[in-house]
Amino acid sequence: MADIGKLLWPQSVAVVGASSDVQGLRGRILQTILSHPFAGRVYPVSRSATEVQGQKAYPSVDILPELADLAILIVPAQYVPTELERCGRAGIKAAMILSSGFAEEGEAGGRMQDEISVIARRHDMAVSGPNSEGFANIAASLCPTFSPVMDKNAGPIKPAQALGAGQISVISQSGGLGFAVFDRARPRNLAFQHIVSTGNEAALEAFDFVDYMLDEGMTDVFLLLLEDVKTPERFKRVAEKALHAGKPIIVGKIGRSEAGARAVASHTAALAGSEASYRAMFDRYGVIEARELDDMIDLAVGFLACGDRMPVGKRIGICTASGGAGVWMADACVAAGLEVPVLDEATRKSIDVHIPSYGTSQNPVDCTAQGVHKLGYATFANLLAQSPLIDGITVVVTARRSAFLEIDLPKLEDLKKNTRKPIYMWTYTLPSDRSVEILNAAGYPLFTSAFGCVCHTRHGRLPRFTGADIK
Amino acid sequence: MADIGKLLWPQSVAVVGASSDVQGLRGRILQTILSHPFAGRVYPVSRSATEVQGQKAYPSVDILPELADLAILIVPAQYVPTELERCGRAGIKAAMILSSGFAEEGEAGGRMQDEISVIARRHDMAVSGPNSEGFANIAASLCPTFSPVMDKNAGPIKPAQALGAGQISVISQSGGLGFAVFDRARPRNLAFQHIVSTGNEAALEAFDFVDYMLDEGMTDVFLLLLEDVKTPERFKRVAEKALHAGKPIIVGKIGRSEAGARAVASHTAALAGSEASYRAMFDRYGVIEARELDDMIDLAVGFLACGDRMPVGKRIGICTASGGAGVWMADACVAAGLEVPVLDEATRKSIDVHIPSYGTSQNPVDCTAQGVHKLGYATFANLLAQSPLIDGITVVVTARRSAFLEIDLPKLEDLKKNTRKPIYMWTYTLPSDRSVEILNAAGYPLFTSAFGCVCHTRHGRLPRFTGADIK
Repeated sequence: MADIGKLLWPQSVAVVGASSDVQGLRGRILQTILSHPFAGRVYPVSRSATEVQGQKAYPSVDILPELADLAILIVPAQYVPTELERCGRAGIKAAMILSSGFAEEGEAGGRMQDEISVIARRHDMAVSGPNSEGFANIAASLCPTFSPVMDKNAGPIKPAQALGAGQISVISQSGGLGFAVFDRARPRNLAFQHIVSTGNEAALEAFDFVDYMLDEGMTDVFLLLLEDVKTPERFKRVAEKALHAGKPIIVGKIGRSEAGARAVASHTAALAGSEASYRAMFDRYGVIEARELDDMIDLAVGFLACGDRMPVGKRIGICTASGGAGVWMADACVAAGLEVPVLDEATRKSIDVHIPSYGTSQNPVDCTAQGVHKLGYATFANLLAQSPLIDGITVVVTARRSAFLEIDLPKLEDLKKNTRKPIYMWTYTLPSDRSVEILNAAGYPLFTSAFGCVCHTRHGRLPRFTGADIK
Repeated sequence: MADIGKLLWPQSVAVVGASSDVQGLRGRILQTILSHPFAGRVYPVSRSATEVQGQKAYPSVDILPELADLAILIVPAQYVPTELERCGRAGIKAAMILSSGFAEEGEAGGRMQDEISVIARRHDMAVSGPNSEGFANIAASLCPTFSPVMDKNAGPIKPAQALGAGQISVISQSGGLGFAVFDRARPRNLAFQHIVSTGNEAALEAFDFVDYMLDEGMTDVFLLLLEDVKTPERFKRVAEKALHAGKPIIVGKIGRSEAGARAVASHTAALAGSEASYRAMFDRYGVIEARELDDMIDLAVGFLACGDRMPVGKRIGICTASGGAGVWMADACVAAGLEVPVLDEATRKSIDVHIPSYGTSQNPVDCTAQGVHKLGYATFANLLAQSPLIDGITVVVTARRSAFLEIDLPKLEDLKKNTRKPIYMWTYTLPSDRSVEILNAAGYPLFTSAFGCVCHTRHGRLPRFTGADIK
């Protein structure tokens, strides 16, 4: 059985086709690897140069100072089968093929792609691609990719202080979109483990990586960008395994429309299939589909931040200092399939004593600006959490100013510790940096999209499904 | 007829209820006014203080050094009718009432609100509110509001260089959401003219302001946040007038769900009504409904940036350096009701000579990273624009790096000048600041939401409707 561990966690990496021209892709990939503090060895392999970007280069993978764990292939398509075979014979057990020009290009390319698949099987190699954009193992600081997102100028790849304890991995047939999801998540202070671009999937498929990462145990939420599912049986087995493990899989399906499906065929030669059949398959195995890149990230944030306190039902309590913004959130909840029930009398009484007469405790609870100025947000959220009619709480804040949150911080921290119900924060204005800091420090993610804030709640009970629940 | 010009463009403003306590709303409003360079005179009116925030204060509006054009009322609800009557008798022709505690609070409050309406009529005053959060006239640097968004620390209220030539005005029954839309739009470099919070609308309604601003001629796109439409006849007359003037009205309807409608009743005492009946009314008059705050802004950006080159049809050409991101955009177009047709042979031939064999010219045009490195984006967009099958072009870019855009800038500027078809830019990664600068300088907005990038296109022909088109 091919060992994906050799691919994602190599101690030594050969870059076959490396170049000193950092304007081109063959130069960019080595530059990107070298710009991150990867602790293993990196060997440029070049037929024409003895030195590449200041590193000694080797003419072939079979005369490296050691047997490389992983070969990165970025040579013209027609040379790929030969080079991969050379790797296999040398005993290299993993390869990532970034070259394009295979099944996406027509019949001749398709035959070369079949050769890749045969060679991988023959040598029992873990082979990803071709037509991949590479991958990144964040913990290992290993980034064999030409994605501009992993450029050292694009920002740090690990947050100074991560939100929540969990990690996200991205697996994408499209390298551009996979790395884009990571890039868009960066300002949200989330910890990522792997970003893998699987390209045309001649050998390893997206769900092989999910399977490996489930065993590896370092990924808590999976974000997948899929043009197709090549082997449905593999999908079913791995999706069920993820469900049992309580690890959500969130999918952005690429090629939902006819025009999109047509483009997918020429992109990675995938058959996008009918939207309805994919949706049915995803639904059955609890795979969550998202329609926007940022929705995928909001869903992941919801799961990571909730941790082990997922809502047990879909009844949401809302508290707000802005009446209108509270209504907007109530509409967003209902649009997402959640409920916003009128609160019970006991809870209402406990809230009414704190708010002026022009506020309301019905739900949404309009604490009014005056109520929040006096008591802060945490007190109201805590009163809401006491209601037996409520499974989760959404706090509608304006995080433009941080002053009230700053004062409220100790109470917010207590609230996080003392309630088992999940608490979400949505800001209708843009937040100041300090507001984000305060809320993250207290363990709360801050959402700026109302839909994004609530969209994962409806999947709350999903990771708790057992096999018996699969229809 | 009450003169809204006195309300929005006063030369002198009385702040009735002004206080030196800037922690409270009565102090914050004066502080916010004074922190912006308003050229008119501001008179604090206080029953208890002779000086407020370093300004001489007056005990009553009828003994000011001059007749004020506008009175801002922020006194407890029960004093509002008396103070408003005093303003009317003194000859003040406009008032903005920020006090809460009227119809949203019950019957007694409702009676006081009726009194406001009677007093406004009696003295022919332009009265907005009660329960308003105030307004901002950006050109006049006049911000009588306690919204934290207009706080001087929240950032400049005018962009250093505005995108496009047009201006946006926001009119909102909810002050929180109205100012939040402005706040969220701020990083997009858009020019705003007015932000008005109309609250409970005892006298002036949202569409009275639209009516005035249509005559004023300084607003090109209207963003409205509505809990209800109090006088349908007024809505119909003004919406039709906007349609004839070619000025789009984009609405965020607050209280679409049952829970939301219940909350609206207690917020501004509005009757949210059925979602279906509002949608029918909006559709008939070409009013565009948006579901997310950021979608409202994306729609406005689309209209402003297109200016007089709105698409004449719904056939979109897409060019991209990332196959997957191109497919994502094709799916977004189709989801928004647009078409992504296969290109004509002549256009395909003109493109094929520039792209490697693993790219495609079908549409989406996958120029491949290699194609874009060689020629930039503008050349491909220009070739697409020549196609008779295409009404608008979406360019899918990764704006993470600005290097290619920098080189492409002269061609992008030419393209903007030389084609009448609208060209939209979507980045699937987050953009660098420099990328945004370059594209804005060339006259292109850069969208980060795929749906947001295309959603206004389907309304392309709408502002060209004539009265005859209204069913």
